[in-house]
Amino acid sequence: MYTCKFTVMNYQRFFSGDAQVMQYSAIRRMARISSQPGIISFSAGAPNADTFPAEEIKETVSSILDSEGKTALQYGLTLGFGGLVDAIVDFCRKKKISSVTSEQIAITSGSQQALDLVGRLLIDPGDVVFFELPSYIGAISAFRNLQATLLGVRQGTDGIEIDELISKIEQSKRSGRHAKLIYVIPNFQNPSGITLSVKKRQQLLEVADKYDLLIIEDDPYGEVYFDPSLENELLPIKSFDREGRVLYISTFSKILAPGLRTGWIVAPMQIIEKLDMAKQATDLCGSMLDQRIVAGCLRRGIIQKHLPRIREFYRSKCQVMLDSLKSFMPSEIHWTRPTGGLFLWVTLPETLNSEEILYSCLEQEKVAYVIGCPFHVNGEGANTLRLAFCKENEDNIRVGIEKLAKVFRSYCK
Amino acid sequence: MYTCKFTVMNYQRFFSGDAQVMQYSAIRRMARISSQPGIISFSAGAPNADTFPAEEIKETVSSILDSEGKTALQYGLTLGFGGLVDAIVDFCRKKKISSVTSEQIAITSGSQQALDLVGRLLIDPGDVVFFELPSYIGAISAFRNLQATLLGVRQGTDGIEIDELISKIEQSKRSGRHAKLIYVIPNFQNPSGITLSVKKRQQLLEVADKYDLLIIEDDPYGEVYFDPSLENELLPIKSFDREGRVLYISTFSKILAPGLRTGWIVAPMQIIEKLDMAKQATDLCGSMLDQRIVAGCLRRGIIQKHLPRIREFYRSKCQVMLDSLKSFMPSEIHWTRPTGGLFLWVTLPETLNSEEILYSCLEQEKVAYVIGCPFHVNGEGANTLRLAFCKENEDNIRVGIEKLAKVFRSYCK
Repeated sequence: MYTCKFTVMNYQRFFSGDAQVMQYSAIRRMARISSQPGIISFSAGAPNADTFPAEEIKETVSSILDSEGKTALQYGLTLGFGGLVDAIVDFCRKKKISSVTSEQIAITSGSQQALDLVGRLLIDPGDVVFFELPSYIGAISAFRNLQATLLGVRQGTDGIEIDELISKIEQSKRSGRHAKLIYVIPNFQNPSGITLSVKKRQQLLEVADKYDLLIIEDDPYGEVYFDPSLENELLPIKSFDREGRVLYISTFSKILAPGLRTGWIVAPMQIIEKLDMAKQATDLCGSMLDQRIVAGCLRRGIIQKHLPRIREFYRSKCQVMLDSLKSFMPSEIHWTRPTGGLFLWVTLPETLNSEEILYSCLEQEKVAYVIGCPFHVNGEGANTLRLAFCKENEDNIRVGIEKLAKVFRSYCK
Repeated sequence: MYTCKFTVMNYQRFFSGDAQVMQYSAIRRMARISSQPGIISFSAGAPNADTFPAEEIKETVSSILDSEGKTALQYGLTLGFGGLVDAIVDFCRKKKISSVTSEQIAITSGSQQALDLVGRLLIDPGDVVFFELPSYIGAISAFRNLQATLLGVRQGTDGIEIDELISKIEQSKRSGRHAKLIYVIPNFQNPSGITLSVKKRQQLLEVADKYDLLIIEDDPYGEVYFDPSLENELLPIKSFDREGRVLYISTFSKILAPGLRTGWIVAPMQIIEKLDMAKQATDLCGSMLDQRIVAGCLRRGIIQKHLPRIREFYRSKCQVMLDSLKSFMPSEIHWTRPTGGLFLWVTLPETLNSEEILYSCLEQEKVAYVIGCPFHVNGEGANTLRLAFCKENEDNIRVGIEKLAKVFRSYCK
């Protein structure tokens, strides 16, 4: 007979090498504090729920469940619902990724799953991934959890510094590590708001070719530009890729709704075939209802109709934030001027610590932002922070920036 | 300027160790042949779409999008929607997993994601996982993709053979490997249809305790029993677990709809905390709409109302298959007699090969099943096969089994 013991076991001895390196995100911990009522939050990075077309989505779901309820509720193909895959092919062609076929596409549970799966297919412990400084926390976590070596490369106002990238690649090759991947967010980068110039997009491909690396191009914000005349400057690196160096990842989270977990990846067929096997063992398939909803919204023109509204929604918020920063911030403080996306990036004088100041901001002024250090794979960035302009209304943005400026000024003295 | 090359790259040199061991499932390849029109299929393992309450789900979705559309379409908690987590706590208590609290639960994208995440947290390359012979393909893939060493243990009519398990554990300990996990499907196992006896459930816990292993209890079919008087014999191993040796995994795929990717795991808090970090980097969160639909269906009593109908649906199909097997099969052929679930298991004479015979069945009689070998982590089982009674109607089951018997008889001569 089994005897009770009522002890609490320690599971440390069971954890894998991957599990040992996993960290609880400092940002998530702080997000809890920042989401308390009464706080003006520039920290929340999620798209604003006011941009979700809930009513149109409701009509779309009803129609799906009426006409194809049984299949919409059944398991589906691991690589994704065919109707959505085809719609994504069209989407890619509009972005001049002209050679793409449905065999080069996989639909994933948000673009985050694409990052994770690609990581699992390509990264062995110790392999090197190059990141922009700063870069997206979710990609940092996904690759760090696989015990990758993460090396950071500084950004200029036009994106990642190519010379520094080359010197870091050469350095890591000399050290005997397998330099494999360059991870970039070319458009309105999270967290910096910076856009990679067309020239640098082409240079990145040359570098990848010369040093035999692959590029992971993560493009969640490409459609959220503030000025239609920019479109040509936002062409994906993938649109210049003739050799198959680029794995292009995007999502419907920012242009429809993130709760419908639907991202996608365009990659060479050999990689998609492996990704099929990996994803099959990971979750069999994504939510079939979510995928059909997104496909239905594309077919009905709901996303297309909404896009101009979403762009204007974030553009005007961004403009208010930029104007407020200009009005209120002391001259020692610098920030980026995004032309799209949800974020901008603030650099304080080097001696200041944004984490320490955050607690003052919360306590004295009830304003929140995200500290910059966790976005840096090299541990730097203590004097930086991210401001998201997506959540608050324009009045709160003005008031919040004025309050922040007050606290910052007191530290700049 | 970047110059075109138009070569097709080989990506082999980029693939990780995990990617190198990934295999395309033989079963998936054959599933394509078996799903051609006009074929009576005993191969398809998905729940029958006639059991999905599409109309009730439609009403539930509408009500969700009316009352909480904005939050239902937004990102949500990585460990799952609180309303569903609470419902799962109740569900667990009914199964006498009485000590469970919401902190010990994570909602996953199908139970497959729970398997994958647990594997990533617990398995380093070479670590040993013990499997029943035969066992679930999806778990085999998930753990093999992590480069685990998979060791098989035979099953009797009452489940895994404890003596053989012990001897395999001792053997693997002597070989210096880290024996970590026992993976079992206690109720109406996929693929065998076998149910683990209560005595063996308790013995498994003793073994795990003695040899310091964890048990992964995968229970997708526990609610799909054919006789309510069985309920006490189906109590989860987790309900006897006082020490925290058992990670209990289940899903709403068989009792609501698998396209709504919603599984769950009950595990010690220390493991759930790590799982939170792993899942965050894997997909941020699961489909928030799917989770709310499942919670809504539970709250409205839709699942509870449907369960007796689902049980009777599969019971009568199983009975027809068992009766037909008895009527038509030659005496050299043996099969299991499940008391729940979707599958039964057939053993042909040892000299026969079920893969070879499958092609005859398809060609001559247009009947399909799944070959047994891929369910065996030790490469055995060439003379076995799985029959799923979930898809076909009762007439087709009778006709299909008669046709199968005709082919089998020709090989038995």
